[in-house]
Amino acid sequence: MEALKVSLGERSYPIYIESGAMVNSSFFVPHIQGKKVVVVTNTTLKPLFEDKISQALDGYDVDIFCIEDGEAYKTLASYEKIMSHLLEHNYGRDVTLVALGGGVIGDITGFVAATYQRGVDFIQVPTTLLSQVDSSVGGKTAVNHPLGKNMIGAFYQPKAVVIDIDTMNSLPAKEFAAGMSEVIKYGILGDKPFFEYIEQNQQAIKTKQPDVMTYIIQRCCQNKADIVAQDEKEAGLRALLNLGHTFGHAIEAEMGYGVWLHGEAVAAGMVQAAELAATRAWLTAEEVEQIKALIASFDLPIAGPEQMSCADYIKHMKKDKKVQADTIRFVLPKTLGRAILVKDVTESELQQIL
Amino acid sequence: MEALKVSLGERSYPIYIESGAMVNSSFFVPHIQGKKVVVVTNTTLKPLFEDKISQALDGYDVDIFCIEDGEAYKTLASYEKIMSHLLEHNYGRDVTLVALGGGVIGDITGFVAATYQRGVDFIQVPTTLLSQVDSSVGGKTAVNHPLGKNMIGAFYQPKAVVIDIDTMNSLPAKEFAAGMSEVIKYGILGDKPFFEYIEQNQQAIKTKQPDVMTYIIQRCCQNKADIVAQDEKEAGLRALLNLGHTFGHAIEAEMGYGVWLHGEAVAAGMVQAAELAATRAWLTAEEVEQIKALIASFDLPIAGPEQMSCADYIKHMKKDKKVQADTIRFVLPKTLGRAILVKDVTESELQQIL
Repeated sequence: MEALKVSLGERSYPIYIESGAMVNSSFFVPHIQGKKVVVVTNTTLKPLFEDKISQALDGYDVDIFCIEDGEAYKTLASYEKIMSHLLEHNYGRDVTLVALGGGVIGDITGFVAATYQRGVDFIQVPTTLLSQVDSSVGGKTAVNHPLGKNMIGAFYQPKAVVIDIDTMNSLPAKEFAAGMSEVIKYGILGDKPFFEYIEQNQQAIKTKQPDVMTYIIQRCCQNKADIVAQDEKEAGLRALLNLGHTFGHAIEAEMGYGVWLHGEAVAAGMVQAAELAATRAWLTAEEVEQIKALIASFDLPIAGPEQMSCADYIKHMKKDKKVQADTIRFVLPKTLGRAILVKDVTESELQQIL
Repeated sequence: MEALKVSLGERSYPIYIESGAMVNSSFFVPHIQGKKVVVVTNTTLKPLFEDKISQALDGYDVDIFCIEDGEAYKTLASYEKIMSHLLEHNYGRDVTLVALGGGVIGDITGFVAATYQRGVDFIQVPTTLLSQVDSSVGGKTAVNHPLGKNMIGAFYQPKAVVIDIDTMNSLPAKEFAAGMSEVIKYGILGDKPFFEYIEQNQQAIKTKQPDVMTYIIQRCCQNKADIVAQDEKEAGLRALLNLGHTFGHAIEAEMGYGVWLHGEAVAAGMVQAAELAATRAWLTAEEVEQIKALIASFDLPIAGPEQMSCADYIKHMKKDKKVQADTIRFVLPKTLGRAILVKDVTESELQQIL
C-alpha cells in the first residue's frame, strides 16, 4: 500500500499501515538522522516486540529503555526517568526516539522527544488499536498531573508512524474493545458511511480479519490526518475529535486513572453526548439506540459509573483543557455523522442525562 | 521609540525597550487574550516590582506566584510547582503568563507556558541586563537537570518582550557585570563596530547612563532578533550566539550551578575561545589582549577556575547540546567581529590553552 500522509508543510510525515510493518526497516531508515536510537517501551511489551524492532533497526546503536506498564505511570516522574537515562548516556540532539507501545508510551515518549535538549526526532510505533487509530497520529504529546489528564505536554509531530496490524493479535480483548470505541467515534463525528461500514462488518472486526482491520485503521488515520492538517493546534475543528472525551475524562479522573480504560470512558461519554444531543432533538431516539447498540456490541459500557453524580462530572469538566472563560465546551452530534462544538450546555441539561 | 520586531511569520513579536516600560499597559494589553494573568516571579523581586506590574495589568485578574530566587531553583521541581498552582486554580488555555525576573524566571516560565495544557501565551518582562540582552528574546525555554544545564526545554516564542531599563538600578553590581559579558559577546561574534562602541563608552556604561544603556540593549536585541529570525531552532547560524558557552557551561557544571554566574562563566569562556582562535592565528595576540582588557574592565573573570583540568572541561563539554556524532562543536572568532562554528578542535589544542 501507499503510505498515508499528514500534511503539515515541512513537518509532514507518512503513516505506514501494514502487516509486518514493525520489521520493515524501509519504514524507519529514511526517518533516522544519526546512528543512535533509543526505543522507549514498557516491561510487558519488551519481550513481545524486542526482536522485531531490533531487526528493523539493524545497523543502528539501539538502546531499549522500559518504563512500567500502565496509565498510572504516565507521569512527570516517568518522564524524568527517561530524561535521566538519556543524559546519563550522553545522547545528543541527533538521537532518534522510537515510541513502541500504546498511548501511554506514545504520549510520554513524544513529550520527551519534544523537550529533550529542546527537541529531538521520534517515530511512533503504536501497538494497540486505540493508539493506532488515535493518539499516534497528530502530535499531541503529554503526561498526566494528579489534578488532570494530559495537562502537561506539547504539540510535537513524529517523523513517521509505523503501524503493524499484527500487534492486534497480542492485544487483550478489553483493550481491543477500547480501541473500537475510538474507531466508532470517527463514524459518529464526521463519517456516517464509516459508521455504517462498522455496523455491517461487526463479525469480521471481532475476528480481526486483516483486510478489514487494515481498512479500518487506514480510514481512521485518514480522517484524523485530514483534521490535523487543517487545525494542528486545536483552534477549532480538531476539538471535534474530543467527542465523548469531556464526559470520558471526568469518568477517568473520578475513578482514578486506569480503573476505566480510556476507550471505555469515551464509549460511555459518547452515549452521554448522544443523549444530550437527543434532548435537543438533534438525534432521534432511534439514532441514540443505534449508537448504543454498536458500542454495546463490542462489550463497551453505554453508561457512566453508577456512583457518579452530576456534580462529580461538572467538578472534573471545569478542569478540561477545552474550558474557556469558565465555559465548559462539549462536542455533540448535530446529526449522526456530523459533530459540532457547543458552548451553551446548561447544568439542568446535564442533570437530565446524568 | 518604535518597538523592535522578531520576525517569525505568525509567531512574530515586538520587543519594547524603554524607561518605565513595566508600568505601560499599552505594551501588555494587545498581547493578552483572556482575563486571567499569572505573573511568575521570585521572592526577591516580588516586593520590588509587584506594584508596577499590577499597575500595568490593571483590569485583569492578576495572580502573582513566586518561586525561590536563584539558578538552583531552575529545576523540574519548580516547574512542577508552577504547574500545580495553575491546575489547582483551574486556569484554562486562555491564561497568559508573565515572566517577571531574570533568566531563571524567564526560562522556566517560558517552559511552563510551552507545556501547560500544550501551550499558553506568555510575555517576557526581563529584569536583569543579562536576560534583557539575551535569554528573553528568541524563545529558548528550559530547566536544568542535575546532569546538564537547560537539558529539558522547548523552543517557544513569547507574545511580547517588555524591557524596562529602570530595573537596572536595582541590579547588584555583580549581575550587571554578568550582563555586560553577553553584551560584549555580540561585539565579538558579529558586530565589531559595537565592540568598539563599548570600548569607547565604558564610563557611560559603568554609570548606567540611560541613553547609552537603551542603545546597548536595542543593539543587542536587534542582533539577536536578526539571528533568530534566520534560524529559530539553531540549525546553524544561531549556534554562534553560544560563543564562550561551551567553555562557560563546563565551568558552571563543574563548579555547581550558581557558584559562578552564567555571565561570568561566559566571560572566561570567551577569553578561552579567543585564545584557542589565536593558536590558529585567527586572532592576533593584540586582539586577544583587547578582548581580555574589555572583559576585565567590567570586573569579569578572564580565566576559568584554577582547579579545573582540561579533562574536567571535556567531560562536561561532551554533554553539550551542540555535540553531534560525539564531536564537540566550538564557536570561535575567525576574526574579531565574526565568529564561526568549528568542529575539528583537537584535545591537544584544548590542552594548550586550558
